[in-house]
Amino acid sequence: MRHVNYLDVDIQSGFWKKKQDMARQSTIYAVYSRFKDTGRIDAFKCDWTEGKENKPHYFWDSDVAKWIEGAAYITAKKRDRKLEKYIDEIIDQIEKNQGEDGYFNIYYTVVEPEIRFQLRHTHELYCAGHLIEAAVAYYEATSKRKFLDLMIKYADYIYTRFYVQKNCGFTTPGHEEIELALVKLYRVTNDEKYLKLAEYFIYERGTQNDVREEKYDGVCNQSHLPVLEQDEAVGHAVRAMYLYSGMADVARLNGDEKLKETCIRLFDDVVTKKMYITGGIGSSSCGEAFTVPYDLPNLVSYTETCASIGLVLFAHRMMLLNPDSKYADVIERVIYNGFLSSTSLDGRSFFYENPLEIIPYLSSRDDKNNNNYRSIHFPPKKRSEVFSCSCCPPNISRFIPSIANYLYSVEGETVFIHQYMQSTARICLSGKEIKVSQKTNYPNSGKVNILVEGGDCTVAVRVPWWCEKAFETQKGYAYYNVRDGEVLSVDFGMPISFIEANRKVILNCRKYALMRGPVVYCMEGCDNPKPLRDILVDTKTKVHIEKDCTMLLPKLKCKGYVRKMSDDISLYVKKQSKDEKTDVTFIPYYAFANRGEEEMLVWFNVKN
Amino acid sequence: MRHVNYLDVDIQSGFWKKKQDMARQSTIYAVYSRFKDTGRIDAFKCDWTEGKENKPHYFWDSDVAKWIEGAAYITAKKRDRKLEKYIDEIIDQIEKNQGEDGYFNIYYTVVEPEIRFQLRHTHELYCAGHLIEAAVAYYEATSKRKFLDLMIKYADYIYTRFYVQKNCGFTTPGHEEIELALVKLYRVTNDEKYLKLAEYFIYERGTQNDVREEKYDGVCNQSHLPVLEQDEAVGHAVRAMYLYSGMADVARLNGDEKLKETCIRLFDDVVTKKMYITGGIGSSSCGEAFTVPYDLPNLVSYTETCASIGLVLFAHRMMLLNPDSKYADVIERVIYNGFLSSTSLDGRSFFYENPLEIIPYLSSRDDKNNNNYRSIHFPPKKRSEVFSCSCCPPNISRFIPSIANYLYSVEGETVFIHQYMQSTARICLSGKEIKVSQKTNYPNSGKVNILVEGGDCTVAVRVPWWCEKAFETQKGYAYYNVRDGEVLSVDFGMPISFIEANRKVILNCRKYALMRGPVVYCMEGCDNPKPLRDILVDTKTKVHIEKDCTMLLPKLKCKGYVRKMSDDISLYVKKQSKDEKTDVTFIPYYAFANRGEEEMLVWFNVKN
Repeated sequence: MRHVNYLDVDIQSGFWKKKQDMARQSTIYAVYSRFKDTGRIDAFKCDWTEGKENKPHYFWDSDVAKWIEGAAYITAKKRDRKLEKYIDEIIDQIEKNQGEDGYFNIYYTVVEPEIRFQLRHTHELYCAGHLIEAAVAYYEATSKRKFLDLMIKYADYIYTRFYVQKNCGFTTPGHEEIELALVKLYRVTNDEKYLKLAEYFIYERGTQNDVREEKYDGVCNQSHLPVLEQDEAVGHAVRAMYLYSGMADVARLNGDEKLKETCIRLFDDVVTKKMYITGGIGSSSCGEAFTVPYDLPNLVSYTETCASIGLVLFAHRMMLLNPDSKYADVIERVIYNGFLSSTSLDGRSFFYENPLEIIPYLSSRDDKNNNNYRSIHFPPKKRSEVFSCSCCPPNISRFIPSIANYLYSVEGETVFIHQYMQSTARICLSGKEIKVSQKTNYPNSGKVNILVEGGDCTVAVRVPWWCEKAFETQKGYAYYNVRDGEVLSVDFGMPISFIEANRKVILNCRKYALMRGPVVYCMEGCDNPKPLRDILVDTKTKVHIEKDCTMLLPKLKCKGYVRKMSDDISLYVKKQSKDEKTDVTFIPYYAFANRGEEEMLVWFNVKN
Repeated sequence: MRHVNYLDVDIQSGFWKKKQDMARQSTIYAVYSRFKDTGRIDAFKCDWTEGKENKPHYFWDSDVAKWIEGAAYITAKKRDRKLEKYIDEIIDQIEKNQGEDGYFNIYYTVVEPEIRFQLRHTHELYCAGHLIEAAVAYYEATSKRKFLDLMIKYADYIYTRFYVQKNCGFTTPGHEEIELALVKLYRVTNDEKYLKLAEYFIYERGTQNDVREEKYDGVCNQSHLPVLEQDEAVGHAVRAMYLYSGMADVARLNGDEKLKETCIRLFDDVVTKKMYITGGIGSSSCGEAFTVPYDLPNLVSYTETCASIGLVLFAHRMMLLNPDSKYADVIERVIYNGFLSSTSLDGRSFFYENPLEIIPYLSSRDDKNNNNYRSIHFPPKKRSEVFSCSCCPPNISRFIPSIANYLYSVEGETVFIHQYMQSTARICLSGKEIKVSQKTNYPNSGKVNILVEGGDCTVAVRVPWWCEKAFETQKGYAYYNVRDGEVLSVDFGMPISFIEANRKVILNCRKYALMRGPVVYCMEGCDNPKPLRDILVDTKTKVHIEKDCTMLLPKLKCKGYVRKMSDDISLYVKKQSKDEKTDVTFIPYYAFANRGEEEMLVWFNVKN
């Protein structure tokens, strides 16, 4: 299965075009500005000395690298000289401050130069990985080679130190990421040593050669076992996703069946035991980690934005490795829900955590300047423009501009369509370029017209898991032979459904969620009687669609019941039967927390 | 209002007699044996030196003092020479090791003698308070004065150092307790300086003179404000209860109206905003503290046993200060539920925390030897014979033998009956002793026959809050004139009721609990289909009573629904309508966790 690069796919209008415009016009500049203010950009000058403000942190390289990567995707589609100028200034600083040997890392250049490649738990190779990814992206976007060449030099140095000389303080990175970056570098350079190094980092992990930090017992960064022996997704969710992505890459490129089986097992573990309905993963704030199966608390869900993005990266690679619609289904689940919720509707502020429920009075425990209250970490109730650990905003600003990466792939004469967006793609099929266009206003409707031009082909369309119509499918894809110039019309509908969780997710027992097609909905306090948990939704009455201009997708309205207010201040009284009817309004989950700090609820009670 | 001491009330049979027998035969010896094993008893020899095992902890005096107090209550009712021997041995050690000046504290005698009365946050005066309480109890139980005299000497020394010389490192105790102990000492000695010292500790708290630990900002130990300005119960729940108890004592003895108003305000804050249905208080494990109003999570409820006992102590004093049945109602709520759950049915193992729900797979997060999982503290799933912080077991072993303290009080010619237990009381009324007997098998039935002998009197019986029958009451008490030799029969019924929480307790919205009279019931996994949260209880069908010999009170059975099991491993599917009928079994909450580590649920879903 061959991937169709975002460079060959143009999203022309509709839902994601609006999001891409927002990312291009607002997000990329908003993030740059915050990074400038916080010293991250100027840190590349490597002139910090003790006593100065803005002491570099050991993950700052990666923050800026992700920003460069996003800016590269943007300028690739519509040249932006201002962005390129910003990028080129940073590259000049990298060139100036890179070691003779190829080494580059802000923190270890100005703060602790004496301990390069000695500490596993700081993010040295993680930063290197992101710089490599950025360099590849910028090269592919602009054909400018300078950054790529600098990073090739750095990668060669890493190869020498870790793979040839083996003289560093650790064997494999404490925060995975470089594995998938090395595969990208291999793709653009065709130099096999990068693939070999990625494979080395993967296979050394968790072996006796691997140096584990005692504190985490190897679980945090998936070093508890050799990778082929890993059956369960554990530890820090972002680390896990980046590792598994690299594993899937290597499995595919090497035709490594055992590694492939491991990836399948780990993916299934995540999506059948540890994933929120929004596609959020990593339920615990402590260690930003996976916990035990089916532990998916709504109020204190951690569900870091970067982990959702990581799940897309993993699922995308699995899709190429093991064609099955479940992977693209997960990508769709994430992009419309647990990923998109990260960003305010104006594109300028961000969630690190994406909770599934907010009860403001409970979160207010955290507001008190008093440790006595803090037995539980509640996610913030509103998005921020910046946070000190700022991995998520630039991850968002690189993800949205490159979302066209997830639409198509090719196997033989078959074009696979995984996601539906109004777009045109140039796809090389047996040496011939054909054009595939989608006309659709998905996910406002499930109708998609697919026009093929330049040759005949087989089109395999993903039938979404939520689709109620009958399609003949193989592993979730419906196959059609389409002739040159022909339009294939498919209609998945856009059903509104009440969803239940597997009963093993005890915390959701007897609670239900509302989805319209791939989009999860939620109640928000400003539209509904409070507390939201008191509402019983009547799942038997019709759900009405109400157009909404601010949220891109409609609100949904249905009927329900609330208990009549009583003046009794008693905490406990005999059960009363005082339900009265009420209207219940739902908004797309991704749009919550754009109208103040409100109660919010995804999993609600129903009249049963 | 005058209190009738447990010494004058004999519980003769029924529910609490069985519990008292268990405390006398098992608990008191089980706790002694654990205290012996852990070095707590021998620590009174004060011969520990650096390098030896069993280094004394600064709260060990209080653990043993509470045990002595409990043993005193037991031997008072039925002489137990073995217990007295144990106690006398400890007293001999205290005598031997008490300072010339009267000072006694194990920890500050052998570990850090140079900093006596310097650190507020260690439990020096808290230990003193418990020793004083134990001495008073032992004196009243046996008429042996030695321990009392030793503690008078110590109290005099404390009076001198804190009240006269004011030359200690702090002004008021970091862990309150001594206030109420000094009032007891005042009661037996009639020496006003103890009352004055209690009053001083109360009124200095939170003032500018008071030294606060920075770490806690004064909230942990109620030093954030002068007591009269305190409107809300805050901080460490046990500390709060002990302080408020002392305040209620002083308010009553001094006729201090402002202090009384403060106590009323604080009590109402607790019981209308911060109390579980079981009478448990202090919802957060972090700081063992109260948090924001209506924050009553079930799964991670902290609800320390000592805090429940503290609430009884406070409510009892409020009952004497401000006659209203709400105080005795709260005592009843605690003793049958959040207190009693602390102790296994065999009386030998104990809960420190008394959760309202157990989901074993979630608690198993804590079992993993991995900090990554520990974002939330879940209470233990089974009772322990000992814990390092062992305040609860001896608090239990002093509470049950003295429970007769909470039955009666006298005002003028009126005998108030607050709790119903088969018992006989000797009550002094206008200088004449009358005998009041209750014949009842409460709480198995709500029928109580009250026989008055030795004179006429007015009897005021508490009509429990859950009673559905009509009584003419004043502040919750029904008044009857009863002649010498007459039997007053009252019947409160023992209704089975589904209970709802105030809607502000969002976490309980649309969930219901089952009570029979004062007893809260719960579901346990071994009796019911799991997960328990999946069960919808049908509140419209009759609840049946099923006799049970092991738990003292019957099980309750009713009808409900569960979802049919599906083989689908998907986490999220469309709502299905596959309910099937099931029987649902409830047991008294206090009896949970006596049959292995099981799911447990107090607040359940209902068919609505």
